[in-house]
Amino acid sequence: MNGHSGSVLRLIDCFARLPGIGRKTASRLAYHLLRMEEEEALAFARAIVEARQNLHYCLCCQTISDGEYCPICADGARSGSEICVVERPRDIPAIEKTREFHGRYHVLHGLISPLDGIGPEELRIKQLVERVGQEGVEEVIMATNPTVEGEATALYLARLLKPFGVRVTRLAFGLPVGGDLEYADEVTLTRALEGRRDIL
Amino acid sequence: MNGHSGSVLRLIDCFARLPGIGRKTASRLAYHLLRMEEEEALAFARAIVEARQNLHYCLCCQTISDGEYCPICADGARSGSEICVVERPRDIPAIEKTREFHGRYHVLHGLISPLDGIGPEELRIKQLVERVGQEGVEEVIMATNPTVEGEATALYLARLLKPFGVRVTRLAFGLPVGGDLEYADEVTLTRALEGRRDIL
Repeated sequence: MNGHSGSVLRLIDCFARLPGIGRKTASRLAYHLLRMEEEEALAFARAIVEARQNLHYCLCCQTISDGEYCPICADGARSGSEICVVERPRDIPAIEKTREFHGRYHVLHGLISPLDGIGPEELRIKQLVERVGQEGVEEVIMATNPTVEGEATALYLARLLKPFGVRVTRLAFGLPVGGDLEYADEVTLTRALEGRRDIL
Repeated sequence: MNGHSGSVLRLIDCFARLPGIGRKTASRLAYHLLRMEEEEALAFARAIVEARQNLHYCLCCQTISDGEYCPICADGARSGSEICVVERPRDIPAIEKTREFHGRYHVLHGLISPLDGIGPEELRIKQLVERVGQEGVEEVIMATNPTVEGEATALYLARLLKPFGVRVTRLAFGLPVGGDLEYADEVTLTRALEGRRDIL
């Protein structure tokens, strides 16, 4: 006898299917939901259903959006001349937090990864090419992750977009601010050296 | 602009309210639910609603149960002469895993904690006293956590139950198996010394 009731066990199974959640944590979370106010627990269930039912993609940048256009693409104050290309919708909040980027985004919904059977046609690349071809785009910033797949995808897109006469740039590589030189891996250090700049 | 859509943000808020889940993890989990098969995501919502609607307590041991009696209390093969007292329903699976205990449980749903305003009347102690008074109980094993509150509750219950002429025992304290003496705190080591046994 495992000691959980049937419906609790089903809830634990659901939590355990989420990434980074093991059986122990899943069990703790499930029992927490049972101790919560009933209204709050049911609001959780409702939030899942609503988020799924409102699952639309912005007609412009392809991010997850409640409306036809996401708030950023709908915002006339955001410049249309710069497009920042990211892998996933959740990369947008990370860049928005810097308050340094005032252009628009484009979400690929993945990276090119031949080993996982993901080719360019699986990603929202066609929509990016259309945007670059139509609008007054001047610069496309590749903000994919600093991984093999992120690099390969950035390079692929750079080659694809060059013929449009736009500037294609890549986020800088280097030491993380607040990091420790001693703990930096050699690839990062090499990139930091290559990208060194004059101080004065 | 924070860059999340409204319904995604509400889902992130729900996850972030769970214990041990920060904003970053909440965001990762929410977006994972949006990438899942729709059927699987809706099953998650359903599991929450069902677990809440099936939230009953076993009439005997007070654990969370789908039916009037939990599977352990309903199992005639389990001995009624030993009662293992635990703080929470999720402590039962931990003890069941040892396959060493063949009696029944009693769930207090908390520990006595004057600082948090939790007195004996907030816990399912009355039901425990009733069980000990009625059935042929021979031993009550205190399996509350090895914390100040767990100890105080075990001691309080021991005094309460002694007049019934039952044996009241406590789980042993000592070094965790596979642990390292060097890293054991002094209180644990003191308890391990106090509880030492003859080897042969």
